[in-house]
Amino acid sequence: MEFRFSPIGVVHTPHELPEKTPIQPRYAQGVKGQVEVFAEYEEGLADIEGFSHVVLVYVFDRATPHRLTVVPYLSDTPRGVFATRAPSRPNDIGISVVRLVGRRGNVLDVEDVDILDGTPLLDIKPYVARFESNEDVRSGWQDDVDEERARTRGRRGFRGGPGGASNADGEV
Amino acid sequence: MEFRFSPIGVVHTPHELPEKTPIQPRYAQGVKGQVEVFAEYEEGLADIEGFSHVVLVYVFDRATPHRLTVVPYLSDTPRGVFATRAPSRPNDIGISVVRLVGRRGNVLDVEDVDILDGTPLLDIKPYVARFESNEDVRSGWQDDVDEERARTRGRRGFRGGPGGASNADGEV
Repeated sequence: MEFRFSPIGVVHTPHELPEKTPIQPRYAQGVKGQVEVFAEYEEGLADIEGFSHVVLVYVFDRATPHRLTVVPYLSDTPRGVFATRAPSRPNDIGISVVRLVGRRGNVLDVEDVDILDGTPLLDIKPYVARFESNEDVRSGWQDDVDEERARTRGRRGFRGGPGGASNADGEV
Repeated sequence: MEFRFSPIGVVHTPHELPEKTPIQPRYAQGVKGQVEVFAEYEEGLADIEGFSHVVLVYVFDRATPHRLTVVPYLSDTPRGVFATRAPSRPNDIGISVVRLVGRRGNVLDVEDVDILDGTPLLDIKPYVARFESNEDVRSGWQDDVDEERARTRGRRGFRGGPGGASNADGEV
């Protein structure tokens, strides 16, 4: 059985190298990007402006071939791939919740983008507060990763050169 | 451009009819299901037991043909499809965060399942507390939907027959 999906758009970001791309929106705060939705799908963006965050579903189109055991970015211990957010997965589908800043026709201006430039977009879903809250969350091996270490590793050199990159906000 | 994905497993649930399937995990509290991962991918489940919740990525394989403007379940006003979680989307990919209760080899026992029985599974990701928190969330038209109305409509008749279904917990 096989399912075929065609992109509805493309994500434009300042991240050009996988090894320098933050691993999560949390470690990409203030990074601006544009979500270009192809004109034929623009009608589907109606009413999206009311949401502060959107869920982007996309293809990790430059992921290396998948392995079932991986060493995650935030730890040195090998883990099952389904217990990590590593991009090299059997089906290389990525999900990021980004901040929606505005819309210009078929283009969404977003922030906190951890996505490679030119990434094929499969879907956009609204982030709905009442649907997303979960209680009593345990995060497995992630709970043992110190937040300072997570931030250092998670940003992966983002802000790059001397003085820091201009597309990082003041907080990070 | 086209991307092809093959299922890594299948989701077993008590929901057999789309029109009676809760629209979100929030409206399916206590509903038990099993996530069967095909044996060839079982290695990738290592370490997942430590997480209380997992993100299931799957195909809405019984969705009707997509429209770009839809009337959402929780409202009577037509909206752009990307501002809704309706299953009939240009790429019919669904995402649900469910509670992970346990693992038996290649099978995950889960709860709060809003997924149709037999749904093809594309990916499992860990739900990581530090990655998922978002502040200052605005939820667009959803903010105008009264929670009582949302619950009534969102459950979509789940608990079915007289006395309520046995697979709903006491809270709902």
